Amino acid sequence: MPDKPVLKIGLIGSGFMGKTHAFGFASAPRVFDLPYEIELHTLADRSDAVAAEAARAFGFARSTGDWRAMVADPEIDLVDITAPNALHKEMALAAIAAGKHVYCEKPLAPLAGDAREMADAAEAAGVKTQVGFNYLCNPMLAQAREMIRSGALGEIRSYRGVHAEDYMADASAPFTFRNDPVGGGALADIGSHALATAEYLLGPITKVLGDCATVITSRPDGAGGTKTVETDDVGRAFLRFENGAAGTIEANWIAMGRKMQHDFEIYGSKGALLFSQERFNELHFYSAADPAGQRGFRRIEAGPDHAPYGLFCVAPGHQLGFNDLKAIEIARYLDAIAGRAPEPFGFRAGERIQTLIETIQRSSRETAWLETA
Amino acid sequence: MPDKPVLKIGLIGSGFMGKTHAFGFASAPRVFDLPYEIELHTLADRSDAVAAEAARAFGFARSTGDWRAMVADPEIDLVDITAPNALHKEMALAAIAAGKHVYCEKPLAPLAGDAREMADAAEAAGVKTQVGFNYLCNPMLAQAREMIRSGALGEIRSYRGVHAEDYMADASAPFTFRNDPVGGGALADIGSHALATAEYLLGPITKVLGDCATVITSRPDGAGGTKTVETDDVGRAFLRFENGAAGTIEANWIAMGRKMQHDFEIYGSKGALLFSQERFNELHFYSAADPAGQRGFRRIEAGPDHAPYGLFCVAPGHQLGFNDLKAIEIARYLDAIAGRAPEPFGFRAGERIQTLIETIQRSSRETAWLETA
Amino acid sequence: MPDKPVLKIGLIGSGFMGKTHAFGFASAPRVFDLPYEIELHTLADRSDAVAAEAARAFGFARSTGDWRAMVADPEIDLVDITAPNALHKEMALAAIAAGKHVYCEKPLAPLAGDAREMADAAEAAGVKTQVGFNYLCNPMLAQAREMIRSGALGEIRSYRGVHAEDYMADASAPFTFRNDPVGGGALADIGSHALATAEYLLGPITKVLGDCATVITSRPDGAGGTKTVETDDVGRAFLRFENGAAGTIEANWIAMGRKMQHDFEIYGSKGALLFSQERFNELHFYSAADPAGQRGFRRIEAGPDHAPYGLFCVAPGHQLGFNDLKAIEIARYLDAIAGRAPEPFGFRAGERIQTLIETIQRSSRETAWLETA
Amino acid sequence: MPDKPVLKIGLIGSGFMGKTHAFGFASAPRVFDLPYEIELHTLADRSDAVAAEAARAFGFARSTGDWRAMVADPEIDLVDITAPNALHKEMALAAIAAGKHVYCEKPLAPLAGDAREMADAAEAAGVKTQVGFNYLCNPMLAQAREMIRSGALGEIRSYRGVHAEDYMADASAPFTFRNDPVGGGALADIGSHALATAEYLLGPITKVLGDCATVITSRPDGAGGTKTVETDDVGRAFLRFENGAAGTIEANWIAMGRKMQHDFEIYGSKGALLFSQERFNELHFYSAADPAGQRGFRRIEAGPDHAPYGLFCVAPGHQLGFNDLKAIEIARYLDAIAGRAPEPFGFRAGERIQTLIETIQRSSRETAWLETA
Repeated sequence: MPDKPVLKIGLIGSGFMGKTHAFGFASAPRVFDLPYEIELHTLADRSDAVAAEAARAFGFARSTGDWRAMVADPEIDLVDITAPNALHKEMALAAIAAGKHVYCEKPLAPLAGDAREMADAAEAAGVKTQVGFNYLCNPMLAQAREMIRSGALGEIRSYRGVHAEDYMADASAPFTFRNDPVGGGALADIGSHALATAEYLLGPITKVLGDCATVITSRPDGAGGTKTVETDDVGRAFLRFENGAAGTIEANWIAMGRKMQHDFEIYGSKGALLFSQERFNELHFYSAADPAGQRGFRRIEAGPDHAPYGLFCVAPGHQLGFNDLKAIEIARYLDAIAGRAPEPFGFRAGERIQTLIETIQRSSRETAWLETA
Repeated sequence: MPDKPVLKIGLIGSGFMGKTHAFGFASAPRVFDLPYEIELHTLADRSDAVAAEAARAFGFARSTGDWRAMVADPEIDLVDITAPNALHKEMALAAIAAGKHVYCEKPLAPLAGDAREMADAAEAAGVKTQVGFNYLCNPMLAQAREMIRSGALGEIRSYRGVHAEDYMADASAPFTFRNDPVGGGALADIGSHALATAEYLLGPITKVLGDCATVITSRPDGAGGTKTVETDDVGRAFLRFENGAAGTIEANWIAMGRKMQHDFEIYGSKGALLFSQERFNELHFYSAADPAGQRGFRRIEAGPDHAPYGLFCVAPGHQLGFNDLKAIEIARYLDAIAGRAPEPFGFRAGERIQTLIETIQRSSRETAWLETA
Repeated sequence: MPDKPVLKIGLIGSGFMGKTHAFGFASAPRVFDLPYEIELHTLADRSDAVAAEAARAFGFARSTGDWRAMVADPEIDLVDITAPNALHKEMALAAIAAGKHVYCEKPLAPLAGDAREMADAAEAAGVKTQVGFNYLCNPMLAQAREMIRSGALGEIRSYRGVHAEDYMADASAPFTFRNDPVGGGALADIGSHALATAEYLLGPITKVLGDCATVITSRPDGAGGTKTVETDDVGRAFLRFENGAAGTIEANWIAMGRKMQHDFEIYGSKGALLFSQERFNELHFYSAADPAGQRGFRRIEAGPDHAPYGLFCVAPGHQLGFNDLKAIEIARYLDAIAGRAPEPFGFRAGERIQTLIETIQRSSRETAWLETA
Repeated sequence: MPDKPVLKIGLIGSGFMGKTHAFGFASAPRVFDLPYEIELHTLADRSDAVAAEAARAFGFARSTGDWRAMVADPEIDLVDITAPNALHKEMALAAIAAGKHVYCEKPLAPLAGDAREMADAAEAAGVKTQVGFNYLCNPMLAQAREMIRSGALGEIRSYRGVHAEDYMADASAPFTFRNDPVGGGALADIGSHALATAEYLLGPITKVLGDCATVITSRPDGAGGTKTVETDDVGRAFLRFENGAAGTIEANWIAMGRKMQHDFEIYGSKGALLFSQERFNELHFYSAADPAGQRGFRRIEAGPDHAPYGLFCVAPGHQLGFNDLKAIEIARYLDAIAGRAPEPFGFRAGERIQTLIETIQRSSRETAWLETA
């Protein structure tokens, strides 16, 4: 592709998310007419050996055990961070200082203050950033937002959001970084998705009243003893939105049997929408304008009417997968880098999510409605 | 049935619920081996004419426009109240004073204090009482409770309950008794069902934090003007249960498109249960003990394994209807009157529901966790 | 109800269906404004003792072990036959000869020729008859038929019907009357429902090509030996309809896990309908006229818009049960007896079903498309 | 990847399937540890210009408007054919003659005899072949097959398969190659999928009785006139399997509202499986061995227990998409080329499908049960 500029990627990390990103960089150019040719330049990981092996597997040309060296490499255009959460800030600030665009997995940082610092730095440096909220890239969510904005639901009155899984349901599983009082807990880990979806669809949340509950109060410490858990297993909040709607979200990582219940229900004066990530190629729409006796929730299946589905497959009903959402995320970010579109979910948006989380946590401790602005 | 004592029924009211009760009295003896022969003795309504016509339609032998006369009739054994909520207390106390058993539609009374007075009077008089929480009579709820008690779900950790309909979603519908600040609102009207189901399944709620929101803030007053609405359209609460579980309920009568979303999700350490009243002949059960690769929510269909389904139909999958639940409710109440079983949901239980409602309402006003005992 | 004529019922049989009919006679007058007052006059069964006990349980005033005596009783207006299939013809002809209206459970008779004789006799005698195809009484089926007739689906092109259960799936269950080569088999037992629904919705079937398969080829004979089974466990047919549509039905009584899969899928040039008896208070409708991007199958929930649902319950989503369908069936039959409406499913219709069954069976033996007129 | 041999791909065609294949070649190496490094060597299409543009978009290094030149190129190891069906045979035979491995989209050829010739040639030449039946690559189908083989369903008794879409439902859409009497029709186009799935799961079909129906009997010819359609819009067949089961398949391309109803229901003596491609990350399993009162169809969600899902995503419930199935298909084919595994679906398997299709078509014309061996 000689007529396209080359964008050289430096990836930090090769775990679940590192692999998902590599997958996205490989598939995005097959699907989208990207503004750049992507070059998988260097993969950095915690050791030269680990990095070398991952680079081979993921198709990166070079590898290093020293992420700082990679960030300093003038050839690299974009630093992609999928390292542990605690390192995000240091890595991102270094990359920004080096003038790189920065793509960072969620959460942007364990604390909102850190996230703000990162967002400020990026804006000052004029680089483009992105946080990996890939569920927002689902064409059916875009369809939902469009229907809300167009008035198909009328005035929005009520919202119910949930993100429930069961990956922490086993009480004998050891204490991990997820249980760290700084940045840990179900609300921060997956409630962040529920909050991002809620604001994506309905606009700003203005007030929250939280209820963060620890259910499994101690876990094995990995050294034969136990360790007290202070982070929430279930984080709930009552919400008020700027548009006048009221609602709730629940984040729950001990919901036995649930693998991906990232769901919402939206009720308006003229209609309603239901969605479940368990069947994320579907959106259910109720219109009060349908004829009497024939009203009901319509199961809309994803298809070429729901861009950019048609770029993946010309026929409806074939379904996108989780990794496809990542390709969409990357394509949109590259559009932002090229100046074709605003940042879809930049560091400022990541900071917003952390602010919401901390406000809900504080609200829970204080049993008080708190403003989120 | 010469070998069975006769139980003479006096019914007050002939609206939606009056008809449902009459239906239940007619069908219960066909289904159950009741301890009594039921005699539909007298129907009372707001006028002689209305009462006479309803008596003919429902199969009552006598009728009257004066409910006091009926309550005083020494022939009557059981007074069944389906009159407007505001009259429940006066009618019930009169019937109790006359030594009648009293069956009263929900809500028992608009205020918990009134409900307590009624329960006290009934206990003092030694009569048997019942409040009409018919959803609790679903065999699938009994199945759910039995599974919880038997430990099939392990330790119960998390509960999500909802009762959502859309019968008040139309903002142009006039102000009614449902909007009366005393006893009105979605939480009182249908949240009562959600609370009854929650305690039926998991046992006592110990603490609540409420969020009662008015969405449609004024309604036509029926006289060309508008009237301010102060009651909640959506009532939500965070819950703590005595068994250690935490959860939520939501009552919502403006949930456009929802006709009967009386649903719950229960997550335990070993399994989970999902239920929706929209398909109330089904219960969904997840067992973590199922083999790897073959786990999933099982859709259990109601059948003769779920008593008393088998008395209605010997074959599974044929399904009970709403009115069948009322027949079960009546059969259980008659068993209690005959001393065969404890009261399934007596006035004391009705008082409990009103107490929960008022505590949630107060909690919402005060933004404070309140104890419910 | 002094202003209504009395209709005196004589019921033969008190098993599953006898009980269901008694239930229907008790509930129909509570729901419908019937043209008659129903009097449960006499219950006949195979012995005086059995009949006496059933009469008590079901609310009949008299009982007898001699059905002939009951049929001869000049007081009886309507003879209701729920006795074993092999006796239907003799009983019905006797009742017709005595000038009674006759209500007979399905199948009307094991052989189409017998059914024809019965229908001829009834028409000659001028009495009103009914065969108990209660699934046709579901308001959602009426809704489906109305939508088809109104053109909402356009030209009907394709039909898929199935009736599958698993009550014969256990190979160790003994040989019964259901396996009798005369009148037995899955096609006759439950395929009859699938055929009745198909013609109810789409009109006459004109040609069939059958495939009747015996899967469990021998069963215990109850005397320590085994008996060869010749009747079908699964009966399938390709269909052609007079309206031009082509389709299939399947009757299957060894469909492990299925309790009531009486389902259909109808595809037209403008829309489609899906239905499952497993959730028989729902109908799913696809309209090609919905806007692009918002098309999908609508889950229509039963409610007062779907008469006569509203007579059972004034609110949508509360759901009818199996026994309610029987009450509707009885109400419609009484309307026919009173001359208010044509017979909803008389003996001629019952004969038609037997003719379809026999034609499919013969088609299967001959591997030939056969006309069904 | 210096330690892996390079496999050089020549792709013919760049339409829907060409793009899907290119996507698969790009993503397979990110997911799987393939035995080869894939080199996208040359893309051939109907003109130099079309080929050049597609090569750029799909990442091929060279392009040509002359597929014969590409097939003759000694550098190419594998020829991948996504050209129109009518050209498959000529292209494949040329590639085989040149000693290439050949990957061909379905249908392998319009006529079984041609498919046989192609399979014979490939076997004689010792090259490895593959036909693109990608639905078979779904991990949930492997799970289903494993459960069948392990006896979890007991003896298999009954099968219902369907593949229904609506892409030909519009009667005003013009006559195309799909309507060509040679190789056209719904049975050939999508019934092939239903047949492949049926034999994948249950083993060989031994006998068929077909019913191929033309519903839209003429279509615009694109020149202002109309053209008579002789191919089937709906192809149905009764089936007998070598394992003793009986069943049906239906292929329907005018099923308004259906986008991807590639479904099956399998009933055995101990359990059952239900599947719908509309939700292809789920499999529903009923076990008669579950405790009474707790039996039901379990909704199993795809996860790492279902290989190779875990290579795409380490967490369950995230879901694979249509394009992921293609990556699996390619990985399996490369394993076969490397001698690690047998051909998953070679030309001989493709011939088998064509034989089944033609046998059903002939059976329909002759109204006769025909053997398929």
